[in-house]
Amino acid sequence: MHAPAPSPRPARALSVLGTGHSLPARIVTSAELDPVLGLAPGSVARISGVQQRHVADDTDTAASMGASAAHRALQAAGVGRHELDLIVCASATQDQGMPCNAALLQRELGLGQSGIPAMDINASCLGFIAALDTLTWAIQAGQYRRVLLVCADIASCGLDWQQVEVSGIFGDGAAAAVLGPGDGSGAIIASRLKTYAEGAELCQIPAGGSRFHPRRIDQPFTPLTSFAMQGRGVFRLAARHLPELLDDLLKQAGLTLADIDWVIPHQASQQAMAHAAKRLSLCPDKVVDIFAHHGNQVAASLPTALDIAVRDGRIRRGQKLMLIGTGAGLSLGGMIMVF
Amino acid sequence: MHAPAPSPRPARALSVLGTGHSLPARIVTSAELDPVLGLAPGSVARISGVQQRHVADDTDTAASMGASAAHRALQAAGVGRHELDLIVCASATQDQGMPCNAALLQRELGLGQSGIPAMDINASCLGFIAALDTLTWAIQAGQYRRVLLVCADIASCGLDWQQVEVSGIFGDGAAAAVLGPGDGSGAIIASRLKTYAEGAELCQIPAGGSRFHPRRIDQPFTPLTSFAMQGRGVFRLAARHLPELLDDLLKQAGLTLADIDWVIPHQASQQAMAHAAKRLSLCPDKVVDIFAHHGNQVAASLPTALDIAVRDGRIRRGQKLMLIGTGAGLSLGGMIMVF
Repeated sequence: MHAPAPSPRPARALSVLGTGHSLPARIVTSAELDPVLGLAPGSVARISGVQQRHVADDTDTAASMGASAAHRALQAAGVGRHELDLIVCASATQDQGMPCNAALLQRELGLGQSGIPAMDINASCLGFIAALDTLTWAIQAGQYRRVLLVCADIASCGLDWQQVEVSGIFGDGAAAAVLGPGDGSGAIIASRLKTYAEGAELCQIPAGGSRFHPRRIDQPFTPLTSFAMQGRGVFRLAARHLPELLDDLLKQAGLTLADIDWVIPHQASQQAMAHAAKRLSLCPDKVVDIFAHHGNQVAASLPTALDIAVRDGRIRRGQKLMLIGTGAGLSLGGMIMVF
Repeated sequence: MHAPAPSPRPARALSVLGTGHSLPARIVTSAELDPVLGLAPGSVARISGVQQRHVADDTDTAASMGASAAHRALQAAGVGRHELDLIVCASATQDQGMPCNAALLQRELGLGQSGIPAMDINASCLGFIAALDTLTWAIQAGQYRRVLLVCADIASCGLDWQQVEVSGIFGDGAAAAVLGPGDGSGAIIASRLKTYAEGAELCQIPAGGSRFHPRRIDQPFTPLTSFAMQGRGVFRLAARHLPELLDDLLKQAGLTLADIDWVIPHQASQQAMAHAAKRLSLCPDKVVDIFAHHGNQVAASLPTALDIAVRDGRIRRGQKLMLIGTGAGLSLGGMIMVF
């Protein structure tokens, strides 16, 4: 049973006015982790594919990292923070149980008296794609002119180091984009999100909400705050649906893969990215891959890769980008945009 | 410093095709709570304004309550669950830390193989208003034809009964709406969300995310999972900004208060609703008030009140509704719609 594919539709004007990302100062190399975990030298890097990841210290919060990324994106966009008319967080993890992440970010940005509306859009690791897609309708309609979109995730507190094949892949970070109607040269030309919650347990953090609340359960709480991932199951379900998603996107856009300048995937894992690239016949030279030095930064992962490739000059205005990935849900999402 | 008021804009067609709500079977009266808390008979009801509230038992989850509300909304709308093209949860609390609430709801609805996209929009207690507003742009543009919007919150696990003036006001529940472009008779004619995160600490659940993660703090964890509310501070900040919000809404809509058929407020507290009604000069006969028998059901509160007034025949097609409230953030939000 599949949701019907949306019919082809005209491009929606959207300018990504500026991007930015932020990383905690502390770097943890996989070489450092080997002896701590009692493993032979090179084990963590080999198992995870990650050479190093940035890890939040006690003073970093999702809001502080998000604010730092936001300042860079605002600077790149030439937009002042008081010019914003909407602040959206699309992180995959919560900063606090309440209020929403965007309110805490608004305070961190020194905008606590501004009245600028703040809300979250959460599609797990695919939050950036889902939020970009969702917000563009309102931007195109003229409702918002300067939207700050931020993904900030601290994954490091949710790692169970007994399972190095899961814990070894994650890193912390934040990334931001300032969106606006712009001058009409940028556009979203295709987008797609699909959720197969038969795979909801394949990638999850059980605790954090009401289901496994410490007052409602009779089992040790802290282990439930860890990422639990069944890598093989995620891969199997994703592999079954990714080719169709790619076809849908290209069909919506009226393009072929050869027309795409850059593919920016969610940096899920070394294996997932390699398999997806092979399965989708992606040219490796066109794929932005920051995994070895950042790990999987959850929802911040994809926009961090985007910002890095914008700042190092690979991605240029007018190019066609494909954003694509899988995330907890299990969800698959993709977007084709003219940058 | 205030965000500029959006310029008046044409109504956006939106049909609320059907609504539904669901309550846990277990009822806890305030009379029952008096002796448990060592208080004189009538104390809890007097302090909280709540006669009874529904409370989730061990088998209820936000997803199961949300699915039950969704089934009722789908039935009222005459829409089959496989006809949905988007599932959005706008709860104020998380079901699990990951994936998003909407994925867990999709599974609960037996749609785990459907591919129907699932994501959350979180604006704390104002999620229903924020999501309705955000989604309408895409619905109007033809991107979605049948959207399921669900708010489901279990507040009861986050209550500190030492503070009966906070804990006494909450109840559990879920509510849903099926949205579509419809036949053009329904519309959103004004909407507004404002966030003043200088008040982020006035109403919060510190734990549940990375900031007060059990692995990152050196203090007892469970108390941090409780709602913490500074009622007087919330009231003061809300009172300062609510009149302007109301004016903005009426100005956007080109209406006066006399033109509004029903005001459906977030059922924040007895005091908040009374003060708001007085301050905004609302006619009590036009206000849908379910507080005494439900308490504050967080994000589920407002759509539950809406569904109750639709089902008992008070709200009829073509009437003008004002949805309004305050929520953690601190946020204020409102909307005027033709139902």
